[in-house]
Formats: sequence, structure tokens, C-alpha cells
Amino acid sequence: MIELDPARDAPLYEQLYTALADEIRTGQRKPGQALPGRRTMAAQLGVSVNTVDTAYQMLAAEGLAEARPRSGFYVQKTYGMLHSRTVRPVPPAPAAPAGPLPRYDLSTGSVDTGLFPARSWGRLQRDLLYQRPELLQRGEMQGDAPLRAQIAAYLSAYRGVDCTPEQIVVGAGIEYLLGCLAHLFAGQTAAVENPGYTRTRTVLQNNGIPCVLVDIDRDGLPADALEQSGAGLCYLTPSHHFPTGVTMPAPRRAQLLAWATARPGRYILEDDYDSEFRYDTRPLPSLQGMAGPDGPVVYLTTFSKSLAPGIRIACMVLPQSLLPRYRRDFAAYANTVSRFEQQTLCEFMAGGYFARHLARMRLVYKRRMETFAAALRGALPGVRLQRVHSGLHFLLTLPGAGGEEAMVRTAAREGVRLRGLREYYLARPELCPPDTVVAGYAALQEEDIPAVAAALARAWVR
Amino acid sequence: MIELDPARDAPLYEQLYTALADEIRTGQRKPGQALPGRRTMAAQLGVSVNTVDTAYQMLAAEGLAEARPRSGFYVQKTYGMLHSRTVRPVPPAPAAPAGPLPRYDLSTGSVDTGLFPARSWGRLQRDLLYQRPELLQRGEMQGDAPLRAQIAAYLSAYRGVDCTPEQIVVGAGIEYLLGCLAHLFAGQTAAVENPGYTRTRTVLQNNGIPCVLVDIDRDGLPADALEQSGAGLCYLTPSHHFPTGVTMPAPRRAQLLAWATARPGRYILEDDYDSEFRYDTRPLPSLQGMAGPDGPVVYLTTFSKSLAPGIRIACMVLPQSLLPRYRRDFAAYANTVSRFEQQTLCEFMAGGYFARHLARMRLVYKRRMETFAAALRGALPGVRLQRVHSGLHFLLTLPGAGGEEAMVRTAAREGVRLRGLREYYLARPELCPPDTVVAGYAALQEEDIPAVAAALARAWVR
Repeated sequence: MIELDPARDAPLYEQLYTALADEIRTGQRKPGQALPGRRTMAAQLGVSVNTVDTAYQMLAAEGLAEARPRSGFYVQKTYGMLHSRTVRPVPPAPAAPAGPLPRYDLSTGSVDTGLFPARSWGRLQRDLLYQRPELLQRGEMQGDAPLRAQIAAYLSAYRGVDCTPEQIVVGAGIEYLLGCLAHLFAGQTAAVENPGYTRTRTVLQNNGIPCVLVDIDRDGLPADALEQSGAGLCYLTPSHHFPTGVTMPAPRRAQLLAWATARPGRYILEDDYDSEFRYDTRPLPSLQGMAGPDGPVVYLTTFSKSLAPGIRIACMVLPQSLLPRYRRDFAAYANTVSRFEQQTLCEFMAGGYFARHLARMRLVYKRRMETFAAALRGALPGVRLQRVHSGLHFLLTLPGAGGEEAMVRTAAREGVRLRGLREYYLARPELCPPDTVVAGYAALQEEDIPAVAAALARAWVR
Repeated sequence: MIELDPARDAPLYEQLYTALADEIRTGQRKPGQALPGRRTMAAQLGVSVNTVDTAYQMLAAEGLAEARPRSGFYVQKTYGMLHSRTVRPVPPAPAAPAGPLPRYDLSTGSVDTGLFPARSWGRLQRDLLYQRPELLQRGEMQGDAPLRAQIAAYLSAYRGVDCTPEQIVVGAGIEYLLGCLAHLFAGQTAAVENPGYTRTRTVLQNNGIPCVLVDIDRDGLPADALEQSGAGLCYLTPSHHFPTGVTMPAPRRAQLLAWATARPGRYILEDDYDSEFRYDTRPLPSLQGMAGPDGPVVYLTTFSKSLAPGIRIACMVLPQSLLPRYRRDFAAYANTVSRFEQQTLCEFMAGGYFARHLARMRLVYKRRMETFAAALRGALPGVRLQRVHSGLHFLLTLPGAGGEEAMVRTAAREGVRLRGLREYYLARPELCPPDTVVAGYAALQEEDIPAVAAALARAWVR
């Protein structure tokens, strides 16, 4: 029996509504069943007819009950039917790594954010919040113009990218930008590097672009194999192939550009994901710069590694030939990056913070790589380290340690998390060089390096 | 003739490299042409052979020149070919509104950000930057758990949404989330409301979901017409149809849910875009709540209107039936919203700022609507205002003002920007009621209301 309490905060009609709604939801009142007449109910509960009527109207308004003219209120027929659907328990979100967290993480995604100038970033951002209220309003679809100008200047100076700010599109991560590109390239097939980024293939396929795998050779993706693949689109990491670390030499770049220019509609997607970090010579300029502002290259890069993974800013440079269609088809879209973060990055670049931060990180990572490499060579007799001079990871080969899988397993047992090179082969794993793992050192603290080397020695050296 | 100057900062090899690179880019040195021998060039310039060699190596590294064994350096063959592509001038990004900015903007997208508590938001955000460095690292794919918990609680309390935090996906705008849904519903056809949001149709179609238009009646989208359309997917704005403002009554909601449950795989996309703002009764709860946590409804809403358009946070509630596939296919994706903004919103909600801000805005917008409506009724004899009690716009009908197009044109001449209702008809404009425009008042300052009413009187009253 329903109890109403005038002493409670909620008005009586609300209390009645809630009680009846519960009875309907729990099935105590069946679909199609009549609710008591308003007078009857009012008398039973000792409340006014208005109170009951309001509660009934609320039930009707919410689709729990329906009013039938000259007849009264009935529990909504379709309601029970809908709720009779068996409600499966929600599967928990997939937990990150299985088992206990590793003491030392050598996986490639990680970045050392301990040196991020959070105070400068925070001050710039706060000032914008207080002084630039107009940033609360919607901004430009491709990203705010001042930020695009900063990015264009930076990419031209550091990456040899040849473009104007009008060609730049700022977006909340490479996945989102690849999704936009997938629309522009609908109907095409994309060649992706094997081994390579699983993620890229997933994103392209999720967006309706079928992918064919092309095996790389020692110079990266071969132009003749690309030609034979029949693909019209090609995803590349020429500056620093993921995960093998190969830097594509100039002649191979020229061949691939020749492939792209040989037929209209062919394009190369150049992912320049971690080219900021190269320690021997100055990095090779981008393929995009070689191809020119209307060349057949879409340049993609992210700030996740140069700033922090938690700040979601990436960008792409569209060839002039793709701009009109992009602008037509995406005119209704709002940009996906908060304007405060766009403008904070803009000031961060304009104020020279970004260049200083990058220069600093380059030194830190270089020293870290050198210390780590030395420690590994000391602890692991016969170890071979490849492609140490760029990016934030290198290849580690150690014959006689039981093979790749055993190396990963025994390292994990010693608290070191890393992945085997074979895991990055999307096909034909037999092409994978043996006894090789991928060692990312970006998040590795210098003081931990001896311990990591020792742990790997315990794991791998008999 | 190349001039090198030892006094300049740049080292000589760099100066030489730059000079030669320019000559190659500008075509003064032709593709395939040999560069002078190293000794010859060194003698000509009075520099060391090493200097010349370094410059040549840099040209080769950048793909401008190629080294041929036992022969020397040549201008890269493919290079000129690539750059011979005619470079079209970059079209300027489309300018927002044509002509001079209107003095008064009654378009529907706008929001009054003048009352946004920027200082509280800024303080929360700054504290996070200083105290929660771990937020610089990558977060959960669906969005940070504490934020999803806040959103689930809010949607349940204010919108009758029936879900757990596990069902919530945070994303950088409705367009991005619709893109994800398009993948989950690949192969389906979507029914969209006519009149309705052009944007939704564009986004769905850009993502490969064909759309069919279904004409709404006085209660919104009719279930029988939906059945006949053959669509398996249906996009709705039931709380407040855009742009007509119709609130879908409970029986129609039940019919549409019956349509969705009649066949497995049918889903309704419920866009609850501005339901926070309703001024007469409490808003109708969501369709999703009526359908239950595993009902056939995907609930979508944005914080653009409740916070600010410049802060890009939206979310969707997936039915349990779609979660496993979503998590499998998007496992590799990073969330598109910066973690600092996610956590700032989380604290903003947890600290009660959000509820207070919404309550305040509801009052402000209500008074604004009432004042504006009164002013219009006073200034425009015979005017009819419809659907004033919810959302941030209403319909204005004025017979004898020369018809919709003339009303929009003459209003613009008086400095008032608004759109005609017919513009929102994606098909069959003949169904559009005559003499009707859409008046958005969210960005209209109270002190301007008399001037706007007077301007419209000058424009429309003879």
C-alpha cells in the first residue's frame, strides 16, 4: 500500500508519482491494467483529487501510463513489452594489462610526461580562460587560424613541410583525422606496411577502406610491390618506420612519389609520428615537402609524443587538390579540439616554450637511449641493438635466449614489460627476424636503467 | 654564381646546401643534370672539399640530388616532375556569414557564454594541471571513469536515462560520435526527420550510412511512415524537435519504441541536444529511459549548449547489446577529449557547479524568452509565436509580411540575422507552413530586445 508523508520535502503528487512509477517499473502493475479512479485513489490516500491527477498526468507524460478519454488512466501497454527484454549485465571495460602491473614498462606507446612544463601550460591556459571569453564560442572548422599558422611555420622549419595554414586541419587525434580521410578516399584500397601499426589498419577498415598488406624491405615499403598491390592509397611511416625504425632513404622516397604521381587520385598518407626525436643527423625532411603543396601526399602528425598523450591534439596537411572537397563535405562539422587547448598550444609555440621543450626532451631521450644501450650491452653478452638513433624505441636481438616469445615471457616474470617484434607482423610472421623484441625507453627513468638491465640479464642470460 | 660568407652564422656547408637547394627547386639546375665535381666546386668557392661533400650529402639525404657510384652527384630526376604539377592557389577557408556581420544574431546555433563561470572552471582546471600530472598520460578509451559516473548520475536524475557508467562514451562532439555509430550500423539505412538537422544527414552520409527522409507530423516522426521507409535506423530529436520545437508525446514514443523492438537490429538514435532548457513543465524523460538499459535506443547529448560551444564535449549512451562490438572495434582508439577537460567537467559536476549553472541559465533564458516574446507581440500585430516553452528558439509566423524569404531578407537589411523555416526542409518544402521564421534568442542580450523588436517591425510591418 502506498504511503505518502506530508513531512517529506517532495510534494505529495511527486511522492505518489514516484510510488506508482516504481510499481509499474517493477511490474506490480501490469501493462494495460487500469489505475484506480482519481477520486477513489484520493480518498484512499487522504489527498486531494488534484494531487492524484497531477501524479497521473506525470505518469502519462513519461509514457508509463496512458489516459483514455472518458475512461481513465491505464498502465502503458508497450511498456512492459519493452522491459521484458532480458537485460544482460554490462561487461566491464577491458582492463589495461592482464596480471600485476609490470615494474618497468618498455612498451612503445609510453612517453615521459614528468618533464612537461605543466606550470607554463597551465598559466597560459588560465590566462586565456580569464582574458579571452570569446574562445567559449565555436571556432573554425579546420582549427583556429593562429594555431594553424604556428603549426605551418613549425612544420616548415623542422620537417620541411611545404604548405600554407589553409591546408592544415587540427583534430583530436590521428584516429579522427584518418576517419575524415577515409571519407575523402571512399572506394579506394589502402596499402599498409607489414610489419606496422595495427591501429592504422583498424581505423581505415572501421571507416570502410579495405587494406592490403605490403611487406617492407630494408629501405621500407617497396614501390614495385606497392604497384602490384593495386592499392590507390598508401600509408607510410617514412621518417621512422614503426616498429622497425627504418628511415626510408631518398631514392626510395622518390620512387614512391613517382608511384603516386603516375596516376591521378593516388595518394600517400605520411605518418610522421615521432620524427621530433632523432639523435644522429638532422631528421630527413618530410615526403610532403619533397612532393610540394599540391603533391600527392597527406602529412599527418600528432602532439601526443611531443607534448603529452593526455592532451589530444593532432594535425594533418591536405594537398591543395583535396581542400575544396574536404571543405564542402565537412562544412557542418565543428572542430574536435577545445579552443582553449588550441590557443594554449598556439601561445606555447609562439612563446618558444614548445621549441625549448622539444630541444630539452631530445637531449633527455638521447642520454636515456645511450645509457640504456650501454647498460644492455654490458649486461647481455652478444646482444644486438638496431635503429637506436631515432624515435623512442629500438630493436633488441639476443640469440640463444630461447626465442622471441620466451624472451617476452621471462622478461615479464622479472617485471619488465615489452613486446616481441613478431607481434607487429600483420601477416607472414615467418619474415620476422628471430630473437628480437621492441624496447621503448621513453618512460624509463635513468635511475632504473641498471635494474632493468639486470632484470633482463636474469631473464635471458643462462 | 653562389656566394658564401664565413661571417654569417650558418656554417659554410649549410650556406652552400641552401644555395644549391634553391637553384634545384627553382629549376635553375635541371632534373638529371650533374652537379659540379666536389674538387672543382671547392676550388671555385674557395672552401674545403669536405664542405662541398657535406652539402652534397645533405642534398642527397633530402632527395634533391642523388649520388651515383663512381660518377658523382646529380639533380634528382623525379624531383622536377613532382614540382611541375601546377600548384593551384589555396582557396581561402569559407567565410562565416556573407556580408557585414548582423547587429543582432537570432540564428539557432548560438549560446550566451557571458554567464559561463570561467573562473571556477579555470581554477578547477589549473589545480588539475598542477596536482594531477598523471592526467598527461593516456586515459580510458570511453572516457575517464569518474566523469562517466558523474554523467550517468546526471542523465539519470535530469533526463531519466537508465544506464551504468560502462555504457557511456565521451567524445569530442556529436559528429565524432555519430561517426563511431555509423561504423556499428554499417550497411543500415537511416531515417532522418524532415524538416530536421542537415548536419546529421551529412555526417551519417559522409560515414557511409544512406539516409531517407521521413516527414514529421504534429507529434513528430510517424511510426507507420518509418515502417514504410524500410530504414533499420532512425535519428530522432523527441524532446524538442529541431527546428519546429515539437515535443513528442508519450504514445508516439511508445509506437516508435514498438517499431524498434519489432525487429532485432533496429535502433533509434535519440539526440537530446537542448533538453536542459524547458520552462513550463519538467522535461519529458528520454526515450532511452523508456526503453531501458538494453533497449533499442542510443542516447546522444552534447555539453556545447549547457557549457559552451568552444568546449568540445559530448557523450552517448550505448545499449548493452552494442557494447561488446563497440569495445572490440574501437579498442585501439584513444579518447578524443583532453583528459584535463574531462576531469575539469567531472569536478565541475561533482562540485555542484554544473547544476547551479544550468539552473541559472534556465532562469535567464526563460526570462529572455518571455521578454522577447512580449516585445514581439507588442511590435508585430498578428504575429504568432509557437513552441516557446522549450529549447533556445521558437517559431515566428507573421502573415502579410511578404512571405518567408522576404522576411529573412528585410530582417537582414535591418541588421537582424535569422533563418526561414523552409531552409530546414531537406525535401518537400511545400509542406512548410508559410510566413514562418526560426527565432533563436540564446545570444540575445535583454537590453537589445526592444531594438530587435523595433528593427523587425520596420522590416515586416507596412
